[in-house]
Amino acid sequence: MKILIIGGVSAGTSAAIGARRNSEDAQITIYDRDVDVNHAGYATHYVIGGVVESIDKLTPTSSAWFKQRHNIDVHTKHEILKIDHESKIVYGVDLETEEEFQDDYDILIFATGSSATVPPVFRDKKFSNVFTVKNVQGGRDLQKYIETDQPENVVVVGGGYIGLGVSEQLTNVGMNVSTLEFLDYPMSQLDSDTSIHIADILEHNGVNFYGSDGVVELVEENEKLAKVITANDKEYAGDLFIVATGVRPNTELAQSIGVELGSSRAIKINEKLETNIPDVYAVGDVAEAFHAITKEPIYLPLATTAVKMGRIAGDVITGGQLRFNGVLGTSVVRLFDQTIASTGLTEKAARAKGLDIVVLTNSNLSRLRFMGGEDILVKAIADKETEEMLGVQIIGAEGVDRLIDVFATAMTFRAKVSDLFQLDLAFTPPISTPVDPVMFTGMTLFNAIHGAPLVTPAELNEKLDQGKEHLIIDLRADKDFKESHLEGAVNIPMDELRKNLDEIEKDKNIILYSSTGENGYIAQETLLNKGCEDIYNLSGGIENYRTLYSDRLVK
Amino acid sequence: MKILIIGGVSAGTSAAIGARRNSEDAQITIYDRDVDVNHAGYATHYVIGGVVESIDKLTPTSSAWFKQRHNIDVHTKHEILKIDHESKIVYGVDLETEEEFQDDYDILIFATGSSATVPPVFRDKKFSNVFTVKNVQGGRDLQKYIETDQPENVVVVGGGYIGLGVSEQLTNVGMNVSTLEFLDYPMSQLDSDTSIHIADILEHNGVNFYGSDGVVELVEENEKLAKVITANDKEYAGDLFIVATGVRPNTELAQSIGVELGSSRAIKINEKLETNIPDVYAVGDVAEAFHAITKEPIYLPLATTAVKMGRIAGDVITGGQLRFNGVLGTSVVRLFDQTIASTGLTEKAARAKGLDIVVLTNSNLSRLRFMGGEDILVKAIADKETEEMLGVQIIGAEGVDRLIDVFATAMTFRAKVSDLFQLDLAFTPPISTPVDPVMFTGMTLFNAIHGAPLVTPAELNEKLDQGKEHLIIDLRADKDFKESHLEGAVNIPMDELRKNLDEIEKDKNIILYSSTGENGYIAQETLLNKGCEDIYNLSGGIENYRTLYSDRLVK
Repeated sequence: MKILIIGGVSAGTSAAIGARRNSEDAQITIYDRDVDVNHAGYATHYVIGGVVESIDKLTPTSSAWFKQRHNIDVHTKHEILKIDHESKIVYGVDLETEEEFQDDYDILIFATGSSATVPPVFRDKKFSNVFTVKNVQGGRDLQKYIETDQPENVVVVGGGYIGLGVSEQLTNVGMNVSTLEFLDYPMSQLDSDTSIHIADILEHNGVNFYGSDGVVELVEENEKLAKVITANDKEYAGDLFIVATGVRPNTELAQSIGVELGSSRAIKINEKLETNIPDVYAVGDVAEAFHAITKEPIYLPLATTAVKMGRIAGDVITGGQLRFNGVLGTSVVRLFDQTIASTGLTEKAARAKGLDIVVLTNSNLSRLRFMGGEDILVKAIADKETEEMLGVQIIGAEGVDRLIDVFATAMTFRAKVSDLFQLDLAFTPPISTPVDPVMFTGMTLFNAIHGAPLVTPAELNEKLDQGKEHLIIDLRADKDFKESHLEGAVNIPMDELRKNLDEIEKDKNIILYSSTGENGYIAQETLLNKGCEDIYNLSGGIENYRTLYSDRLVK
Repeated sequence: MKILIIGGVSAGTSAAIGARRNSEDAQITIYDRDVDVNHAGYATHYVIGGVVESIDKLTPTSSAWFKQRHNIDVHTKHEILKIDHESKIVYGVDLETEEEFQDDYDILIFATGSSATVPPVFRDKKFSNVFTVKNVQGGRDLQKYIETDQPENVVVVGGGYIGLGVSEQLTNVGMNVSTLEFLDYPMSQLDSDTSIHIADILEHNGVNFYGSDGVVELVEENEKLAKVITANDKEYAGDLFIVATGVRPNTELAQSIGVELGSSRAIKINEKLETNIPDVYAVGDVAEAFHAITKEPIYLPLATTAVKMGRIAGDVITGGQLRFNGVLGTSVVRLFDQTIASTGLTEKAARAKGLDIVVLTNSNLSRLRFMGGEDILVKAIADKETEEMLGVQIIGAEGVDRLIDVFATAMTFRAKVSDLFQLDLAFTPPISTPVDPVMFTGMTLFNAIHGAPLVTPAELNEKLDQGKEHLIIDLRADKDFKESHLEGAVNIPMDELRKNLDEIEKDKNIILYSSTGENGYIAQETLLNKGCEDIYNLSGGIENYRTLYSDRLVK
């Protein structure tokens, strides 16, 4: 059997090694038009930022290594131009010698990856000071430019995963960075009450973030890009511009032989990574995945998914039993001293699907406060009907990677909210808390589904705007209440609640809020036990409400 | 309903608050003979070490707070002496005023906790410079002694969780610490190939660790303990002695009314935390738990379990649906710059149960090497028959808390080894790796069950000692081989394996080993695919073997 793989980064090399694991007989060949094989392009900005000592570290393996270690033939700088799938022959060109070549196959794997997309105004323009950050070769070019031209002012176009990483690293080496994002907030795939905090993190660390604005015009000076002009008529000048506005799957070659794309415009695959064409597979950034919860196709080009798809395809082709079960879209980014992570569905995605959900936003501690613990913001979404966890978003200085992976693991097993309380997680004072945020989240979501309902900031506004009369109770200290509160709220500090229980009119529609939600939760239980029936606790408390609707608070 | 709780630390207060969450009508009273309510006694040594700024931080809540916030009556320094369960009356004494009192109840909860045990030679002896570390009041005494007497040389008796924590903290404040352990290694509840590394960590950080030795004689001088003499006839002198040799459940009061103990000598409970006596519950350190995997009783007094048991009992008593599902015994300790964690069954526990298991020891990376990643040692045990994960032990400088909790979460859902590969865990270069150690562990265990068997160091010795002829292949570089290797091994460096494939006699009984096991795993697959049938890879490689059997290596 001859396996031919087009593309030699994470997915392609994983497929090759996966196939070799099961078979010594298979002949395995990889073609890649890039200079490097199996490069860690996702870490390029850490070289620029000096975290990685040399860019060569991102290419630890060579074609020779693949041959010696795995008997896999890797041809870099070889571009496949045409495929005759009826005869199972590929035609290509050696980009170095310009010689043409051809090769045959029994099994063809598309691992052609993705390419950086740029906004329309950047297309077909070429400036020596405009870069995308995608592969190691691009990183070498950028590194060289920085060494030679020593830029000081950088404009990063795009506030996604890569744009933020680049913004951080260039700030860390002393550049003055402005980051522009077309949508309201950075990482806008998350819910806005999460991503608004990311904007704060950027500003707090000296990155100038500008949301809701897109580049519409480029101003050239001495063959370089001098400034960009935006839809809001703002000008951003710089001596270095990084465009990081996303990627698109490199599907052209696959489409040329009739490979079908999915609704995401990436290649449609099944759980065996097969395409619609017999003997043709697709893995990694060129393929679409499907969501482990919704089972719907999603395009989420991540290295973890690429490696997984590759490994499975290599196994399937050589007779193995591995199958692709879909992904939760778990992702994480480190941004200065904060970590932002997400798994499963966002609130907006869940609502867009029409699911009846409950949403908890809560402030937790990474460790006990007396051990130096820091706040962690957890937003969790569960399905009211099935009581299954649907998604989580987390921001904090420490422990975020642990929490997101615990949630992702539980969700892989279709955890119900009540399952989370049962987890036996590790506690020691320097690291964690005796009641883990995961357990607290599960318990609170369970109660929210079973009689102690939460209300999100947006839902609260809806309630208030409907004009129905509410008794709004602010549970914070007198001082905090005086600073600002919801219009119409009465102040009953938590410590005085029990004294005033009999004075609260039980038949009113009650809204409770505390600072971050936890006292509200306790007060809600007390009032429910006292016979109140229509009583909501503001999820995340007034602090979470304030991030989105500070203009609705009064003094 | 009147709920009376004896004991006001983690379990007792959780039960009280849990009950109050469901009911405003219940009258809830806690009696505790200690000075403090709900103290974080588990963090006492961090006060001594200066990590926690003041010992008062360990008692954030008071009796007044419980009354005001939760309408719970807490009486500290009140000892219950006698219970008449027929009449449902308790008799006690106010330890401050020495006044006797009595109280009645409908429901009685034993949350009487555990007490430090000391070796026989310490019993009934009283020295002003000998301390146990259990509760905050004991911490105050120790702190006062250290301030007054400024001890320099400390002998810690006991190398368990608390003994190690104390050894670390006292070393950190400049004392000269010797730690004695009756068994071979510290934390001997773990497997010896794990706990031997903990001895190294102690030595590396300046703690003198002495295993396999017990104190048999105490030598007094000026009313203080001056030195201890051990079974091995060694003398350890010091001006401060900490005895941390474990705890025993305080069951006396419960036994006095006929409450049944389990095989662990702690109170036997069911999933509702009920004892054998109607209307009597037991929670926390006084109760035994059961293992979530084996369903057998275990005594594992941990704060996490105490809080969970308390919460569930409070819920059950007031009509809730929470049930106790058992524990995995997940625990973690931070020791200088290393973290040691464990969940589920150890190898020795699994073998003692007669389970047919597969054991993987593997060196993993916390992050990619070029991002500054460090080695993490993962030992994982799976059931060959059910293919379920049974247990994991992990040691490393970072990421250990994340890994143990992911394993514990997966195991709560009875994960099979093949499930681990499917997890969608979070990757970003500063934090993790694209193929997570959890995924790698699952995949390797799966292969070990399905045709690519592993052999543990002990199993290898057994094989070698049986006298059957083996072809032992050392896959490391020539230089490493020359330094030391298994007797009779031939050296075929990994990079030369493919060149030599035809020369390897396929019908031999083959043992492969590499440095830490990973190359052995690849080589094993290659040789299996080439037709070898009897071929084992040494789990953890020769480096893991060396930690236990360095004397069996030759030059």
